[in-house]
Amino acid sequence: MTAADILVVGSVALDSVRTPYGQAEEALGGSASYFSFSASHFAPVRLVAVVGEDFPHRHRDQFEARGVDLSGLETASGRTFRWRGEYMAELGHAHTLETQLNVFSAFHPRLDGRHRECHYVFLANIDPDLQLEVLGQMASPRLVVSDTMNYWIARKPERVVEVLRRVDVALLNEEEARALSGETQLAAAAERLIEQGGRAVVIKKGEHGALYRSRDAMFITPAFPLPMLRDPTGAGDSFAGGFLGWLARCQRTDGDALRQGLACGAAMASLAIESFSPQRLIETTREEIGDRVAALHRMVTFSLEPLF
Amino acid sequence: MTAADILVVGSVALDSVRTPYGQAEEALGGSASYFSFSASHFAPVRLVAVVGEDFPHRHRDQFEARGVDLSGLETASGRTFRWRGEYMAELGHAHTLETQLNVFSAFHPRLDGRHRECHYVFLANIDPDLQLEVLGQMASPRLVVSDTMNYWIARKPERVVEVLRRVDVALLNEEEARALSGETQLAAAAERLIEQGGRAVVIKKGEHGALYRSRDAMFITPAFPLPMLRDPTGAGDSFAGGFLGWLARCQRTDGDALRQGLACGAAMASLAIESFSPQRLIETTREEIGDRVAALHRMVTFSLEPLF
Repeated sequence: MTAADILVVGSVALDSVRTPYGQAEEALGGSASYFSFSASHFAPVRLVAVVGEDFPHRHRDQFEARGVDLSGLETASGRTFRWRGEYMAELGHAHTLETQLNVFSAFHPRLDGRHRECHYVFLANIDPDLQLEVLGQMASPRLVVSDTMNYWIARKPERVVEVLRRVDVALLNEEEARALSGETQLAAAAERLIEQGGRAVVIKKGEHGALYRSRDAMFITPAFPLPMLRDPTGAGDSFAGGFLGWLARCQRTDGDALRQGLACGAAMASLAIESFSPQRLIETTREEIGDRVAALHRMVTFSLEPLF
Repeated sequence: MTAADILVVGSVALDSVRTPYGQAEEALGGSASYFSFSASHFAPVRLVAVVGEDFPHRHRDQFEARGVDLSGLETASGRTFRWRGEYMAELGHAHTLETQLNVFSAFHPRLDGRHRECHYVFLANIDPDLQLEVLGQMASPRLVVSDTMNYWIARKPERVVEVLRRVDVALLNEEEARALSGETQLAAAAERLIEQGGRAVVIKKGEHGALYRSRDAMFITPAFPLPMLRDPTGAGDSFAGGFLGWLARCQRTDGDALRQGLACGAAMASLAIESFSPQRLIETTREEIGDRVAALHRMVTFSLEPLF
């Protein structure tokens, strides 16, 4: 199996996170980081992002050890993007305590020829205008997946909808799906997003799994059940890494490949949240990933026989 | 396929319900009612419950039209159990406005020989002492499923745990599972309930599906996604009806049968919540049920192939 290259454009950050199970200070974070470590188990990843002059060299080594191409990781003068947040007992939502955009505030993705020729693209959560700009530069993308956040839905809803219309699969969490569609029930929200012009959406429901909806299909994956999790940061981007990673690896987009991709996404998200920072994502093995996908398969797959 | 008889012991009530999508006054309700209509599509059902002298005859006709055996439906002097509740926009939880136990307050299940010989038993949400009493009278049960509610967990936790230990599968909703186990994360709650002596539990997560956990297996079913629902009342009992109904029908308890049962449960719950009262459950057809199970199969089942 020859995996195709994936381009990811997003953030690389230093996160300080506290959860009921521990804390991390200035750990490697950011949407492009979690995505890259996750997807790197399935296909080669080229990362486009920006860091400041203070970005620790050991983090570069971590990307390079996973084979992530950092030729698009710009170093700008100033400090790296920092985020500080905490999670309460239910671990549902992060409470942001502080955001320092720093060099990220002036981020303008610079793509070279090798970036533009990638067939698989993940537009992580950045300004939708930048997402559209990146998309406009791609030579012949086969599958483009986007993410967003409530911040952009509140400020640039029409641009977020424009991205939704231009990509192959738009990822949203529950709140984002409700905010963008105006629907409370998630099945109705997914339907409305398709009516608004989306080709396909994945609504990420955290511990309740994910829902894929296109014009003619609906697929569901549960989350991989974990008795113990430590830090939900990066779960959505790790999910995206497993999903798009598998699709770039198998180079198929049929229903079976999409459902397999959802299971790979669920497996990678479950690994991400077992540790602070992307540590588990970095250290995991093909065997462990395969075991989780096989376990999900056993949990959900049943044989269809006549009931009556 | 010869389906085995099912005994259900629970409540038959008159419900007055308001949701954002409409309301019903003194409609047929109660755990045993929803369960019976649901399970009756899969296997013969014998109902044991109590109603008052004011119970409308047309509701008896509705049970009988579905072949439900009412020889165990006692008529006591007094008024039928009444419940009044409402649901807010998110439809997650009922707000009880009024409960009139009436004849139900003195309910004492009376089982005759045919009841005691049923191999499949659903102990719907009643006092755990009564559940244990019924269980003690069964001649040779093959599969016993129980339900409960927070009311009993708060008042008689040790009796609820005793039921958990004596039945084959205990159904609980999210809140009940958290309350009984003391764990917040549902995967941990399920594990703890097994450690407390449960053989198997099903945690019902409403629109997020259900989780089955035994000592050696875990299965998950999503909820059947509905763009429009009207009244969540009875969803859990209808789920139980599809789950136990299918197991009584196929008379198997292997993993594949259990996962099929979870899908049947999800299909029946989705039908229940599309109308006020059990109307859709009564009117649905084998074709419609089969279509929903097949649709769930398409949404979740994927082929397992080597990822790497």
